[in-house]
Amino acid sequence: MNNFEFYSPTKVIFGKNVENNVGAEVKAWGGTKVLVHFGGSSAKTSGLLETAEASLRAAGIDYVLLGGVVPNPRLALVNEGIALCRSEGVDFILAVGGGSVIDSAKAIALGVKYDGDVWDFYDGLAEPKAALPTANILTLAAAGSETSEHTVITNENGWIKKGYGHTLCRPKFTMMNPELTYTLPAYQTACGIVDIMMHTLDRYFSPGGCNEMTDRIAEDVLKTVIQFGRIAMKNPVSYDARSEIMWAGSLSHNDLTGLGRAGDWAPHQLEHELSGYFDVAHGAGLAAVWGAWARYVYKADIMRFVRYGMNVWGLPMNYENPEETALEAIRVTEEYFTSIGMPITITELVGKEISDEVIAELTEKCTFFGTRTIGGLVILDKAEIADIYKAAR
Amino acid sequence: MNNFEFYSPTKVIFGKNVENNVGAEVKAWGGTKVLVHFGGSSAKTSGLLETAEASLRAAGIDYVLLGGVVPNPRLALVNEGIALCRSEGVDFILAVGGGSVIDSAKAIALGVKYDGDVWDFYDGLAEPKAALPTANILTLAAAGSETSEHTVITNENGWIKKGYGHTLCRPKFTMMNPELTYTLPAYQTACGIVDIMMHTLDRYFSPGGCNEMTDRIAEDVLKTVIQFGRIAMKNPVSYDARSEIMWAGSLSHNDLTGLGRAGDWAPHQLEHELSGYFDVAHGAGLAAVWGAWARYVYKADIMRFVRYGMNVWGLPMNYENPEETALEAIRVTEEYFTSIGMPITITELVGKEISDEVIAELTEKCTFFGTRTIGGLVILDKAEIADIYKAAR
Repeated sequence: MNNFEFYSPTKVIFGKNVENNVGAEVKAWGGTKVLVHFGGSSAKTSGLLETAEASLRAAGIDYVLLGGVVPNPRLALVNEGIALCRSEGVDFILAVGGGSVIDSAKAIALGVKYDGDVWDFYDGLAEPKAALPTANILTLAAAGSETSEHTVITNENGWIKKGYGHTLCRPKFTMMNPELTYTLPAYQTACGIVDIMMHTLDRYFSPGGCNEMTDRIAEDVLKTVIQFGRIAMKNPVSYDARSEIMWAGSLSHNDLTGLGRAGDWAPHQLEHELSGYFDVAHGAGLAAVWGAWARYVYKADIMRFVRYGMNVWGLPMNYENPEETALEAIRVTEEYFTSIGMPITITELVGKEISDEVIAELTEKCTFFGTRTIGGLVILDKAEIADIYKAAR
Repeated sequence: MNNFEFYSPTKVIFGKNVENNVGAEVKAWGGTKVLVHFGGSSAKTSGLLETAEASLRAAGIDYVLLGGVVPNPRLALVNEGIALCRSEGVDFILAVGGGSVIDSAKAIALGVKYDGDVWDFYDGLAEPKAALPTANILTLAAAGSETSEHTVITNENGWIKKGYGHTLCRPKFTMMNPELTYTLPAYQTACGIVDIMMHTLDRYFSPGGCNEMTDRIAEDVLKTVIQFGRIAMKNPVSYDARSEIMWAGSLSHNDLTGLGRAGDWAPHQLEHELSGYFDVAHGAGLAAVWGAWARYVYKADIMRFVRYGMNVWGLPMNYENPEETALEAIRVTEEYFTSIGMPITITELVGKEISDEVIAELTEKCTFFGTRTIGGLVILDKAEIADIYKAAR
């Protein structure tokens, strides 16, 4: 097992009606003036926003509201939030929503305590010294942002989508009520399932040696989300399915599934350009590129793909030709994506075949304009990235 | 999945030579005057204590030493530590050792910030308002105390062994170098393996309904420690085996394996009286009583024992008579204990058959002198506790 650090201090408060107590919890963590950050109208129409507000009022906590976060959350709203927090003297940010809202809240939390442009962190030009505390009421099992140190923001200036991670971004607490995900459209539920799988797979398929404890947890996160994903697609109000998926979602991205491994993250990085460019759902974008990536790199560690096929999908091993098992593991993964309504090509994702010019632009951005390679299992340069986009087309 | 809270904020710093950096880490957590708490001579002869001291000095941190912690750590030394911390102005406690040292450090940390008798917490007479921060360099994979909120102390006045748990007891960080466990005697290694298994089993065999994600992680911890336990018993310097066991040890007791379940803990409570009375190793005591407990209660949930046998031990299910599979699961668990040199009866544990009078005394103490029942899968009263001790005799 390779050396690692693991730090996941977010308090998880999980179950039915837990959000009713959010005011007292914010108070316990020292919040006195709260920015309640949310997305579109569903937080209002569902009554969740009013529940959170009532709980804050009952705890004697003052707050201001900032809605309007969109999927692939934007830098302009982050800057608006930073200004609002400063003018209102906000000392705690409560995100009410999914990964986009939580990512936006983390960005605001970093920006409030920084004199420069918050985008500096995403550009790797600065390291934060402090951040406002954040917490969240989660409404969507997908991004894992509720306990992770990560935030992904899209800069409208050039539509650049970039991620950043820092310990200071770890939320103080997350409230996870599986019932809040009952009303998700099937497509979004499926996107969440893929996202959870990919947080795990992007760690699983990377160099690391003996990491049995880690690998087993990764395989179990995958099996759990795959199996209960099928149930949730058929029965959106299955509490068991929604709760297993929700908890698996946090475990998939709090680092537990990658300890001792380097992480690969090429599929995520390939996808970021797709959702940045086409404004599609992140999970759907991951499904669209993963198969092409996997077929491009699997020969670097055939037995890893064999293990994945056997332990996650219950495939028999072809001893004469293990490569067949590896390829079958990739095929059944795509078959699963299709079964839950996810695309497995970029054409399926965006509704038309993309041109060579678009691929060239995606590739350019994915290399940060020629300044980086991506991947860990196989390190991919510009030409290889373009090849994978073409294979995924 | 039942509602749960999960809070495990301890930073894990895992791998070769991580302890060399302990001074800087203590400093990062705000420690300025440290109590270095340890056990017997091995911390000295191994050079570990000197490594820790050198690292603290290099970070410019003053410290005082307090050794002498014994297995089943004693209240008298805890009180000595409390007095020392107060007289020396200690603001951070660093435990260097295994679960006993860490438990003792937690007790001191609670006591320093409390005006009354620290035993009040163990007696359930008071709730702590504050505690000194603690951290640890772990030398033994067993108790899971390095990340848990639990502390177990023996009061020499009546040789009462009691546990207590509170969020304030969670260590700030743990440094886990698997190499530090290379020199453990085989018996202690085996005790650790059993202890890790039992932290998991005492959560696993309790009511809870659908908890797939939790149950699978529990089964992973069990499989990992069982399989790598065999390797470590044969090859004590296997880094892979020592690291898998060490990490599984933390996961077994940071609550991850019991989320959504009530927990049973009867085997632990039955054992506490044995190690309190006979001063035997906790892990060995657990091995000695578990089989008798399991055979006494398994009919309350036969299919749970069947699942355990199938998923952890790879047993085939006897569809005609599932009870046979349940009993076989208990038998192979005991067979494993025997294979690693652990006792499976109290006679094997203490070297002689204990009398009815001793059983009566153990039973009396286990019920806190008639004031409690124990267990969750089956709630056990005084007569039933005595029956299990007799069956384990």
